[in-house]
Amino acid sequence: MTWVIGIDVGGSKIALGLVSPDDQILSRRRIDTDADEGVDVVTARISTQVDSLKRDLPPGETIAGVGVGAPGLLDPVSGDLYMLVNLPGISNTPFRAILQEKLRLPVRLDHDAKVAALGEFHFGAGRERDSMVYIVVGTGVGAAIIYQGNLIYGESNSAGESGHMTVDPNGRLCHCGSRGCLETYAGGPALAKQYALASGVTVSGAEVTRRAAAGDAAALLVLREAGRALGIAIASIAMTLNIELFVIGGGVASAGDLFLDPARESLKDYCFESVAAKIKVTASALGEDAALLGAAFLAR
Amino acid sequence: MTWVIGIDVGGSKIALGLVSPDDQILSRRRIDTDADEGVDVVTARISTQVDSLKRDLPPGETIAGVGVGAPGLLDPVSGDLYMLVNLPGISNTPFRAILQEKLRLPVRLDHDAKVAALGEFHFGAGRERDSMVYIVVGTGVGAAIIYQGNLIYGESNSAGESGHMTVDPNGRLCHCGSRGCLETYAGGPALAKQYALASGVTVSGAEVTRRAAAGDAAALLVLREAGRALGIAIASIAMTLNIELFVIGGGVASAGDLFLDPARESLKDYCFESVAAKIKVTASALGEDAALLGAAFLAR
Repeated sequence: MTWVIGIDVGGSKIALGLVSPDDQILSRRRIDTDADEGVDVVTARISTQVDSLKRDLPPGETIAGVGVGAPGLLDPVSGDLYMLVNLPGISNTPFRAILQEKLRLPVRLDHDAKVAALGEFHFGAGRERDSMVYIVVGTGVGAAIIYQGNLIYGESNSAGESGHMTVDPNGRLCHCGSRGCLETYAGGPALAKQYALASGVTVSGAEVTRRAAAGDAAALLVLREAGRALGIAIASIAMTLNIELFVIGGGVASAGDLFLDPARESLKDYCFESVAAKIKVTASALGEDAALLGAAFLAR
Repeated sequence: MTWVIGIDVGGSKIALGLVSPDDQILSRRRIDTDADEGVDVVTARISTQVDSLKRDLPPGETIAGVGVGAPGLLDPVSGDLYMLVNLPGISNTPFRAILQEKLRLPVRLDHDAKVAALGEFHFGAGRERDSMVYIVVGTGVGAAIIYQGNLIYGESNSAGESGHMTVDPNGRLCHCGSRGCLETYAGGPALAKQYALASGVTVSGAEVTRRAAAGDAAALLVLREAGRALGIAIASIAMTLNIELFVIGGGVASAGDLFLDPARESLKDYCFESVAAKIKVTASALGEDAALLGAAFLAR
């Protein structure tokens, strides 16, 4: 087994971790990104931090490879990045090829939700399981399905857009142009908007989850509605695929049972009793480390 | 390659086909069943028809095996049948073992939707494809998902209950106890019920599809609503799995584009444009033969 580096590209920061042969994150770095940075600047900054991590290696050890998880549209086979929401300068670039050349190391790239799912599956809430659905509920809502040990990519690499499953055909308009998408109920901006409507106070989605934890009634109601929408989507996925473990990550999931209990409840309302009885809905065990460990797994 | 027999167990009849090494149905038999028949009577009647089919074999040829598709709850590994809606006497029996002993031939058993999906995938609308979702819309609504050539069974053998995906969380009550299931919009009894509400006339679901084909306005409206519900479910499956071929079988699908065009239309309303653009929704190419040919495939 070998030492690898896992990289988690986020909306406003990039996290890097040096991962040991026994899958421990032994050293970390963080880059705060600016939206106007281009691919050359960002990959150069990553390269600097990779060099810095290398100095934390035990004597005589080397890095065998680098794994990267990134949000947006990308092709895991070619390594091209088509669209990265908060880093437009990286969009439409052969990201993996450029990074690979700068690092002089093999690089593998995949969607952030799939990478985090790999982390949870191999080292977190999905250990000892055969199949798992990972749903990340943050600003956006995405999913990754692992069936019998393998990620499902779909025919055009766009599986996992479960944030745009319809949970109410007459529901809220979504930025995707559709109506009633899960994301319009459970995503961070949806929490912020519904909280503002309920309380007259405008705060971020993250603040809504904090206020719910502190007992704020309006925040609790908003989280409950979000959780119930998640439960409907889980029920529909479960009825179709009969996968029995759902691991929920992302910022909104940090609300824990305030968010997950309503999901478990509505899951029962919208699913065969015999199917629902076997389903476990649980929060991510690794939190933000899921992506780093999953990226490291990808690199091996 | 070898000669096999495919058997399609339905609600009120059992169809049998003698299938040649090049996957042609060369001879057929049909058994009309009574609801009060037990497993010994039904398997004895099947055995008689299998003997009859054997006499149609070319000289010197033998049957290598038998495949059976059946509706209801069953375990494809053990071959036990737990619940068969219109043949309660067969419920909770080791159906495959009993049939195998009577026939003195290897028997394989699987769900009717999965068996029909195998037929369409290998010999019908799914030939040359890698992945496919088959949805059967009849009295009940079920599905079978083939991903990269393999049927998805799920962790407890209950994948494919997509008839109970939620298409409207505030929608119609379903016999399963849930609300807004696809089946409450698209299944035959739903067509009959909605047509009775719209026209004051009580007819079967099959008659509603016939009347729609004849231009009956109320029947067309009912089929349109059914098709739109199907499109919502297809959109949600497509967003999660990114499978691009949906083959629709069963009695309601015999209405063809009167049912499928509204599905294609609402699919576009509830799905990313880029995803919807690649999706093909098509009627079963083999009709009732899908199950016979799929059962024969299973037997090989």
